[in-house]
Amino acid sequence: MFDPVEKLKEFIRHPSVSADSKFREGMQGAQRFVADLLSSLGFTVEVVTTKVHPIIFAQRGGDKAWSHVVIYGHYDVQPADPLNLWKTPPFEPTVVGNRIYGRGAADNKGPLMTNIAAVAKLLEEDPKIPLRITFLIEGEEEMGSPSFPGFLEKYAGRLREADFVFLSDTGLPNENQVVITAGLRGLALFDVHVTGAKSDVHSGLHGGAFRNPIQALAEILATLHTPDGRVNVPGFYDAVLDVHPWERAELKKLGVDEKAYADFLGIDTFYTPPGFSASEAIRFQPTLEFNGIGGGYQGEGTKTVIPSKAFAKISCRLVPNQKPDDIKKLVMDAIRRRTPPGIKVEFVDQHKGDAYVVVPPGRSNTPADQSPVLARAFRATDSAVTAIWGRPPLYLREGGSVPIIAEMKQAAGLDSVMFGLFLPEDNLHAPNESFNLDIMKKGMETIRRILGTLARG
Amino acid sequence: MFDPVEKLKEFIRHPSVSADSKFREGMQGAQRFVADLLSSLGFTVEVVTTKVHPIIFAQRGGDKAWSHVVIYGHYDVQPADPLNLWKTPPFEPTVVGNRIYGRGAADNKGPLMTNIAAVAKLLEEDPKIPLRITFLIEGEEEMGSPSFPGFLEKYAGRLREADFVFLSDTGLPNENQVVITAGLRGLALFDVHVTGAKSDVHSGLHGGAFRNPIQALAEILATLHTPDGRVNVPGFYDAVLDVHPWERAELKKLGVDEKAYADFLGIDTFYTPPGFSASEAIRFQPTLEFNGIGGGYQGEGTKTVIPSKAFAKISCRLVPNQKPDDIKKLVMDAIRRRTPPGIKVEFVDQHKGDAYVVVPPGRSNTPADQSPVLARAFRATDSAVTAIWGRPPLYLREGGSVPIIAEMKQAAGLDSVMFGLFLPEDNLHAPNESFNLDIMKKGMETIRRILGTLARG
Repeated sequence: MFDPVEKLKEFIRHPSVSADSKFREGMQGAQRFVADLLSSLGFTVEVVTTKVHPIIFAQRGGDKAWSHVVIYGHYDVQPADPLNLWKTPPFEPTVVGNRIYGRGAADNKGPLMTNIAAVAKLLEEDPKIPLRITFLIEGEEEMGSPSFPGFLEKYAGRLREADFVFLSDTGLPNENQVVITAGLRGLALFDVHVTGAKSDVHSGLHGGAFRNPIQALAEILATLHTPDGRVNVPGFYDAVLDVHPWERAELKKLGVDEKAYADFLGIDTFYTPPGFSASEAIRFQPTLEFNGIGGGYQGEGTKTVIPSKAFAKISCRLVPNQKPDDIKKLVMDAIRRRTPPGIKVEFVDQHKGDAYVVVPPGRSNTPADQSPVLARAFRATDSAVTAIWGRPPLYLREGGSVPIIAEMKQAAGLDSVMFGLFLPEDNLHAPNESFNLDIMKKGMETIRRILGTLARG
Repeated sequence: MFDPVEKLKEFIRHPSVSADSKFREGMQGAQRFVADLLSSLGFTVEVVTTKVHPIIFAQRGGDKAWSHVVIYGHYDVQPADPLNLWKTPPFEPTVVGNRIYGRGAADNKGPLMTNIAAVAKLLEEDPKIPLRITFLIEGEEEMGSPSFPGFLEKYAGRLREADFVFLSDTGLPNENQVVITAGLRGLALFDVHVTGAKSDVHSGLHGGAFRNPIQALAEILATLHTPDGRVNVPGFYDAVLDVHPWERAELKKLGVDEKAYADFLGIDTFYTPPGFSASEAIRFQPTLEFNGIGGGYQGEGTKTVIPSKAFAKISCRLVPNQKPDDIKKLVMDAIRRRTPPGIKVEFVDQHKGDAYVVVPPGRSNTPADQSPVLARAFRATDSAVTAIWGRPPLYLREGGSVPIIAEMKQAAGLDSVMFGLFLPEDNLHAPNESFNLDIMKKGMETIRRILGTLARG
């Protein structure tokens, strides 16, 4: 059996930034690394080409009566910018204490390696274990998984043979409490571009005569929220479902220290919709966020120009029952209506994803037709976590989005058990990303037990 | 007497780009060219060193009773980029028809040569003409004249002996209409920076809990104008002087085609403060413009981040009587008051400049204490222009800013007669800059007459 930390280092050294074509070699290296590793564990590996980055589909077959788990992960990472804020090189993994630093350490290379290592251990202990396993490892997660729906169209038939999906691409609140993510927010992303004059013009010779697109953009964006923190777009909340009382109760058990959370963010006050605490708002409420804005002169000093164009990047996080296309239309329509005269507005559509929710067995809203293997997987998770971490997991919705979770449900009927492994301090998508090696070890042992219990009934 | 067009060619051949140290030789060449030319005309030339590029201070002295004119100009030019858009080499002057092409042809080498040639002609005709003349030719105009205030401190005493400044560094609306610029807007520039969380965070994991600085910035900026196009900052207009009816009447005579102006800008509607047309607003009203904005992710595709910071670059154009420091304070205070909880705001101060206005004799608001020599210069200009161009000049304020004009007024009490010589089609600061040689000829003759009239009373 390989050393999981050494293998993880090897994995991080491949700079697999999916969104930047300069990293083609790193992407190929990471993909081959995963394929070779799974192959060495006895899996039949298919490298499924897509328009962008291949998907690794690796199977351990067996008797149709055996339970069949799909383990999902991704080998691509976020860009490492801004590089100057990294204390260690992002693609040279560095262990300091019980942490390994590097881009992708926590998202998703560390957690994926934890799953692969758990499977390796299981197979080493019992090479004939009655469990079918499919690894489904994609390379476009950080780009919004554009090839995944096309892949699902082709592979839905084979995926339908499985019982559920298991993955570690979500978080833990702290080192002692396992959280199984029971819901994810959806996504609807697009850019808005505004144009005033046909070219940049001198702000002295022409200033005061016509609309500045930066001003128009600011005025449009400023209409999109109410002062009390709700999204100010008609119809935005229409499809939102009520939160179940057990969900609020489960979240209470988490015992979020809101003061500590504010300190972590470095803010002195929250800004949430009425009736929702900060930790509730990020799980139960949709958002409309500005991820970027740009226009005109951004260098040092001054350039007294009235720019021709300005733009903003908008992302909405959606909660179950909100449809991304409906929300995009509502927001774009509101922006169009609120665009002042003299300004042209255009949109560049970006990706989207449905929200997702799964209800563990025994809750008031557990569906009557829940798959028996899924119910067993949840129960196995409950007992393994309780045994190893000293307390049962919490089932919580998360603020983040993993659109492929809803897509796998829609295309192949598969629900997901999302076993979180990264911590708030892991700095995902930020400089100095790291992964906690103690969590890796406990996670490996827990996942090994869950899969073992599932196999042996 | 030299051939002015040949001399202008020689002048253009010196690539005097002040902002780029690669052009040091061209700067030295242009500076020596001007100094030698003025010397050959009998001027006593001082080359005043500064921290960047020298100022040429050249005098023709005489009896204290003689009128004394300071002729201002600059020997530096804008960079010629983008070079690939030039049809002829920017530093190899090329005459096509009645135009001379080359960087600096119109800004300011052609107009400056027109003034020097007018003086040469005058002195050739009457070597003993009772007129004191000081040429003040700087080399940093295209960099914002950073050394000029320091120069003024040292030379204010000598400049106070003069009566007024004459310069040709402004424009004409067309070949038939001379415009004397009677006012310039001032400037107050600063950047505003807002900070939310202490670092960029994931918009899924944390979105909905706290203020996004892009949202806060948009909300702040959106408060800074009223829907009807005024600046929405208490006190902003307090110091603004009423526009005199003669100014509006004079502008009407210009006969601006607002439809053609809208087409030039590529807009379908103007946006001006109530009571001001587009051509009035850019001359008579102050502005608050956004020259740039930035924050978060601006690349292709998406990055679902809530940025820590966002910023905007703000410039106010000021009209006479508004003080740049007062305006900066008013706007910064308003921004501070309008910054929502959870957001930190900071400012980076940039440069500033006072507005300027001069009133020709005989207008309702001509100051009672106007210098008699200045008044005579205006009358001489009126009659010379009427004789040579067939119609009197228009006295119009301009939207742009030339801070050194207000600085010479403040430091040495000198008002300016700004005799425009470049045309809208001359492509200042752009590829294929050119200067109209017919305008040069008429301008030379007009300026010779103005100075002759002034000398002979």
